[in-house]
Amino acid sequence: MHSFEEKTLESKPIFNGKIIEVQVDQVSLPNGENSTRELVKHPGAVAVIALTEENKIVFVRQYRKPLEKALVEIPAGKLEEGEQPETTAIRELEEETGYTTDHLQLIQSFYTSPGFSDEIVHLYLADQLQVLDTPKLLDEDEFVERMELTLEETEELVEKQEIHDAKTVYALLYLKLRGMK
Amino acid sequence: MHSFEEKTLESKPIFNGKIIEVQVDQVSLPNGENSTRELVKHPGAVAVIALTEENKIVFVRQYRKPLEKALVEIPAGKLEEGEQPETTAIRELEEETGYTTDHLQLIQSFYTSPGFSDEIVHLYLADQLQVLDTPKLLDEDEFVERMELTLEETEELVEKQEIHDAKTVYALLYLKLRGMK
Repeated sequence: MHSFEEKTLESKPIFNGKIIEVQVDQVSLPNGENSTRELVKHPGAVAVIALTEENKIVFVRQYRKPLEKALVEIPAGKLEEGEQPETTAIRELEEETGYTTDHLQLIQSFYTSPGFSDEIVHLYLADQLQVLDTPKLLDEDEFVERMELTLEETEELVEKQEIHDAKTVYALLYLKLRGMK
Repeated sequence: MHSFEEKTLESKPIFNGKIIEVQVDQVSLPNGENSTRELVKHPGAVAVIALTEENKIVFVRQYRKPLEKALVEIPAGKLEEGEQPETTAIRELEEETGYTTDHLQLIQSFYTSPGFSDEIVHLYLADQLQVLDTPKLLDEDEFVERMELTLEETEELVEKQEIHDAKTVYALLYLKLRGMK
């Protein structure tokens, strides 16, 4: 089994933002040639498949600036510095949906774009929700609309490309495979 | 239904690379406040679930610089400028696996990281493969190892986190749901 390792010859910082860092690495390829790699560093994120007692899935609708349109997604958010993914998952669930849970199950972690970014998403299932007595505040630059839908009701949104992101379409396949109607 | 639109007040180019472009937008939020959005523009990509006559799935193992390790993924690649996704899918299938097909079926498209990037992946199924008489050349900075695995054989690689990216774990769920053993 080949390692194909690409050794870093030089790493050039390009941008140090609030959320992402961008750098260009000069690398030595397995064949001895050199090339460059454009890399986006990301703190990582969580997403939560939240199921209500009525067997509905909790979604949030929010504007996604890179796409210049709103998407309907499962609740999600970025890790704060030093934060454990489970803590982020509970925090985002509480802030975005008004629910909380003490039963959080890790379903799958995945890198979203391994070609250019180290972003990883940790996907959890929360199928025992409690309604928060006091709703939590969202981040000051965050505006979301909460929705609760049956699995069947999501089909139209997938068709209309309002549900259109990796973690959410993965979550829907997961629920179908689990036998949800 | 709210639009939550974030109007662009100013767009500042940060980096114009071979693959990605980075910009920071100053935006006006729905509540009238301003904020910034860090955006990574990407040309889009395709991925192919390629199934052999022996009911095996074709994978490629390659080094992923952002993660500093090799991953096992379904064949994939970026759109060239002006290229139709179907054309990219056939090209990447041919270059990375030595197979081709004239039966390509779009399964699902998804944005990988809608919070910061417009990258979209178009996922295809190719279950009628032909072996190419003359193998195609890979890009000069691309080194991959081809693998053919049963769905059951993928489980160990998922467990070991060698299969660990969004499009590939989505593909495996899709095949399970389709009744593949």
